[in-house]
Amino acid sequence: MSLKNAFYAQSGGVTSVINASACGVIETCRKNADRIGNVFAGRNGIIGALTEELIDTSRESDADIAALMKTPSGAFGSCRFKLKSLEENRREYERLIEVFKAHDIGYFFYNGGGDSADTCYKVSQLSETMGFPVQAIHIPKTVDNDLPVTDVCPGFSSVAKYIAVSALEASFDVSSMARTSTKVFILEVMGRHAGWIAAAGGLIEDYGIPVLLLFPEVDFDHDRFIGALKARVDEFGYCTVVVSEGARNADGSFLAEQGTRDAFGHAQLGGVAPVVANMVKQALGYKFHWAVADYLQRAARHIASATDVEQAYALGKSSVEMALAGKNAIMPTIDRLSNNPYRWEIGSTDLANVANVEKTMPLDFISADGLGITDKCRDYLYPLIQGEAYPDYDERGMPRYVVLKNELADKKLGDFEL
Amino acid sequence: MSLKNAFYAQSGGVTSVINASACGVIETCRKNADRIGNVFAGRNGIIGALTEELIDTSRESDADIAALMKTPSGAFGSCRFKLKSLEENRREYERLIEVFKAHDIGYFFYNGGGDSADTCYKVSQLSETMGFPVQAIHIPKTVDNDLPVTDVCPGFSSVAKYIAVSALEASFDVSSMARTSTKVFILEVMGRHAGWIAAAGGLIEDYGIPVLLLFPEVDFDHDRFIGALKARVDEFGYCTVVVSEGARNADGSFLAEQGTRDAFGHAQLGGVAPVVANMVKQALGYKFHWAVADYLQRAARHIASATDVEQAYALGKSSVEMALAGKNAIMPTIDRLSNNPYRWEIGSTDLANVANVEKTMPLDFISADGLGITDKCRDYLYPLIQGEAYPDYDERGMPRYVVLKNELADKKLGDFEL
Repeated sequence: MSLKNAFYAQSGGVTSVINASACGVIETCRKNADRIGNVFAGRNGIIGALTEELIDTSRESDADIAALMKTPSGAFGSCRFKLKSLEENRREYERLIEVFKAHDIGYFFYNGGGDSADTCYKVSQLSETMGFPVQAIHIPKTVDNDLPVTDVCPGFSSVAKYIAVSALEASFDVSSMARTSTKVFILEVMGRHAGWIAAAGGLIEDYGIPVLLLFPEVDFDHDRFIGALKARVDEFGYCTVVVSEGARNADGSFLAEQGTRDAFGHAQLGGVAPVVANMVKQALGYKFHWAVADYLQRAARHIASATDVEQAYALGKSSVEMALAGKNAIMPTIDRLSNNPYRWEIGSTDLANVANVEKTMPLDFISADGLGITDKCRDYLYPLIQGEAYPDYDERGMPRYVVLKNELADKKLGDFEL
Repeated sequence: MSLKNAFYAQSGGVTSVINASACGVIETCRKNADRIGNVFAGRNGIIGALTEELIDTSRESDADIAALMKTPSGAFGSCRFKLKSLEENRREYERLIEVFKAHDIGYFFYNGGGDSADTCYKVSQLSETMGFPVQAIHIPKTVDNDLPVTDVCPGFSSVAKYIAVSALEASFDVSSMARTSTKVFILEVMGRHAGWIAAAGGLIEDYGIPVLLLFPEVDFDHDRFIGALKARVDEFGYCTVVVSEGARNADGSFLAEQGTRDAFGHAQLGGVAPVVANMVKQALGYKFHWAVADYLQRAARHIASATDVEQAYALGKSSVEMALAGKNAIMPTIDRLSNNPYRWEIGSTDLANVANVEKTMPLDFISADGLGITDKCRDYLYPLIQGEAYPDYDERGMPRYVVLKNELADKKLGDFEL
């Protein structure tokens, strides 16, 4: 009996450690070469499965696969492409199974967030129905940290470390100049629906730094914010503000959608940081600066959390081990055992518990005034940013990030229109 | 005969390595305790000398002074405060000399950019005239890299490393998502008058990444930029743009001053990145993202260049040695001896050569189309970003940055109004 092959795909926004999960999958498959065949990877994620663009990872050296541990982004390409529901587009799911059948793929490892957990679940169900059962395992990944059951999602912890360190450094800068220069520094961070990333900025309070956080979970209250800001500047001479891109007004509208227009009347495509900066300027007249971290935060492999890298790899590895143990339609999870010392282990949950469930910050992680974090939140966050896992640098001073060959396996089917 | 004391002050925008220069000054003074007295530091820079707020650095432990090597920002405070010309405000210069006299200060170490070089020069001249000669040494510092004579200014090289690494990481991210998501990523960097920092973004071309640079030195040409961008996206599927905050139109106006207004008609205080993003959107309709690094770039001690840290320290150390050798009104410099292997030594120049002279990028560092860098520029930049000089991290995963006691020496004079 020939061995079944595996298919691995990256989904949605990439992170600085998603390739560590890929590394965990591929290395563990290679170590079990007597039980599992080749690993194909989807070129640009699930799209590669639909178009039968399957990257043959067997053509990559062990060294290059190992280098994925230290390379940010999605090495095989990722995509924002949500399969419609089975009812709306059965054709896409059937094509997936058809491609899996043509390439003798018995294991589907899908590395992503909520949408991909849902897809993964459906593939598992449908493949059964179609008489070509595929074991589908979802590997969690999202900087938004919004998947349920698992204590944390790989990708988030490294962003948290980046934001905490960057906010700290910029606050030191502002503190030393505030006498004659900038008094308010505003840092915009990711988080459309959940304030996990902004919360990490709150850790700098432990250095005695005045910092205010604006979460999507808390209705923005202009007067409360301005009052708190003025109090901080009066006391410390300066203040740092960390604002989620998804910070919103009581009516649900985003702060960033303030109807700003350019000279030609076009809607200004701006971030929330300049909006908050203008607000501060108009209410208090303070000199300010603002930064928008955008992709820099989720790609910052140079300051990744060692804990995050280790967990991302472990989840990739465990997903293969679970598949080999006959599991199906599950997601391996990070289960926290204790905060101090930090201990964790790999668990798992049925995909039915994950698909279409979004986890926001617990309300007891947010301080009473809505502008900071609680000790409970600190206890949650610190373990996640423990340890530094630096990439290697070449003699010129630049990181050694690997670019794979990404050669495609021969096609066996006809074309498919997306 | 009692030993003369020293006065050290930080000036202008701080950097991730200006404290390494402070460390070089203080440690070298401590090692020469038989020849030089105490080191006083200006609280908030030169303002501290005028108000007689002199930080007594002798109360700081050797360990804390050593920790300055790994701490960003200005540990004693800095300021944006330019002394007027002697003719306009002789009073301030005379006050400086008065304070120096009261605290028996015979050495003035001023750590800053062009303005402080000018002040340093005048103090040297005036102190002579006033019968209390002070040896004034200027220690170069500026992320703008715009001081003449010296091959490089401490602070710049670490920003260059930060921008090159960050642009690389974000480009990897965009590259892996471009099929279905962002096609153009725009990163705004510092540089009001000179494109040195943007140039560092050009280094990622060596990874095969399509990147366009917008320099203050090159008149912005909308059609040329859009044409080049379209060509890159057609060929690679995506493109990164690194834009200097000071990028400007042919008429001299900043791109950032596009007359954008908010819903209330107030001038929008925005960066140049969203302006370029809108331009791309309107001309080509590509999906884009943009980031503004702002203070994150100059404070990023976590990814400082080891070369930069070493040179910042060496310049602080040399300034004391030059003072002890009887020198006056000079600035120690970095003199480059060779590119590969990179070799450099400390030189010096008279302050008359530095004051009020601004160095912009040589035109042969910019590619013919004005949107990239030349090999000559690469050869200049790479040695500067060589080596990593990480800070220490505590067990929680955060950097150990030192906050000094900063206790003031007793005042001996009456108040002075700024």
